[in-house]
Amino acid sequence: MNPVERVKVCNFGVYVSSYLVRPADIRGDTAVLTGDEAAHASKSARKRPGDELLLIDGVGTGYRCVVRTVEGDRVVCEIREAIPQMGEPCADVTLAVGMVKGDRFDSLVETAVELGAGAIVPLETRFSIVHHTSENRQRRWNRIAESAAKQCLRSRVPPVEKPEALRSFAERTSEFDAVFVAWEGQQEPTSPFPAVVPGSILLVAGPEGGFHDEEIGLLRSKGARTVPLGPRRLRTGTAAIALLTLALQGVGEYARCLPPHAD
Amino acid sequence: MNPVERVKVCNFGVYVSSYLVRPADIRGDTAVLTGDEAAHASKSARKRPGDELLLIDGVGTGYRCVVRTVEGDRVVCEIREAIPQMGEPCADVTLAVGMVKGDRFDSLVETAVELGAGAIVPLETRFSIVHHTSENRQRRWNRIAESAAKQCLRSRVPPVEKPEALRSFAERTSEFDAVFVAWEGQQEPTSPFPAVVPGSILLVAGPEGGFHDEEIGLLRSKGARTVPLGPRRLRTGTAAIALLTLALQGVGEYARCLPPHAD
Repeated sequence: MNPVERVKVCNFGVYVSSYLVRPADIRGDTAVLTGDEAAHASKSARKRPGDELLLIDGVGTGYRCVVRTVEGDRVVCEIREAIPQMGEPCADVTLAVGMVKGDRFDSLVETAVELGAGAIVPLETRFSIVHHTSENRQRRWNRIAESAAKQCLRSRVPPVEKPEALRSFAERTSEFDAVFVAWEGQQEPTSPFPAVVPGSILLVAGPEGGFHDEEIGLLRSKGARTVPLGPRRLRTGTAAIALLTLALQGVGEYARCLPPHAD
Repeated sequence: MNPVERVKVCNFGVYVSSYLVRPADIRGDTAVLTGDEAAHASKSARKRPGDELLLIDGVGTGYRCVVRTVEGDRVVCEIREAIPQMGEPCADVTLAVGMVKGDRFDSLVETAVELGAGAIVPLETRFSIVHHTSENRQRRWNRIAESAAKQCLRSRVPPVEKPEALRSFAERTSEFDAVFVAWEGQQEPTSPFPAVVPGSILLVAGPEGGFHDEEIGLLRSKGARTVPLGPRRLRTGTAAIALLTLALQGVGEYARCLPPHAD
């Protein structure tokens, strides 16, 4: 399938945000918002019967709706159009990133979701400063991913997985069609970004301390290609975001045109 | 000149950060750190005679040095090697960005400097929420740029200019060889990123509310080309960083290889 045609994009001119509806709460042409999402729509955004609303199911479909009724903590919507793959990129890109301290990982999750990452894996590496991460923190990252997906009008909420050691994660590289690692030690000239085929791509960026040579060796032995990102030392988040942008460009994501804004 | 050869890059394996030396404090093979920079080198980093040090002059040259003497608030260094254009990208890229609230502009400045922006211009546009900015805030942005340059081992500290209205700024577009605007309303298909010639490039990204159609019209009338960044609604900082990455790739920045790490 032509990746440029695969994804139907959304006219997002008029929408401030979308709302997350559970797939189980969609039946026929009716979608029901409950809990926090309903409260947000009815109280914060003051949606009333007849108002337009954009829903996402979090697993790849967007719904252009009109509010039918607002009752307590339930907002019942009539689906006018289902939009498969709304706001989704034309390739499935997993971003595995060395964990970093404080809020920096939070903002990396937010930006990566906006740009189109399909999943995020926090990595524990030899030079990681951060190792143990509470379940609370992982939940927090997933909430950030959800909120970023709603904000940027994607229909999938990319999961932020449980932190994993690079050594065991490296075994999973064969699940992907192509693997690229941002590496400041890159010594051979490369093409701007190695040509990639649409499909599933894994991108890996190290922690602040960089990768140990053995880790690069391990990834290379699994077929990973190293990519240089210029003669400056980038923070982890910057390297990850630049790599993600280059990979998405490689698969033609930025060659797609958008439809005109909604009225 | 071949942009790939133009810039000598730095082996940055062993350096934690660089220090900013005033050009006036460089004489022959001697460079003298003063003030905060001297305090940072002598107290925080505990540099002693014989230790290696990387200096930048903030205007495009890096210096590999050895500490000769540490006296109170002066650290006197012997220059072993001057590195013209150390850590600088192969094109001069100015990033003009709609102002956004709170810390988001701070972190945009930091990331843009790391990636290689040559100057940053905060823009006031029709849909900007933030308009008036104190001189304090501009000074703060310039301190962030300085600190990011030292951290990522660039030799130039890119200026963050005084906020300017888009209407008057548009008059300056003729100073640049090429102008690109991130625009979600892009309707015609484009190449992944229009081929750009090395030289001076201006990139423009709007505020959270996007550009008014008249503003896009104004920029286009000045020769700007619009660039789509995929079917998701990006925050200003995300759009600016993605655009910067794509432009730098366009000029061949990521095709340059790096020398091996220093010992």
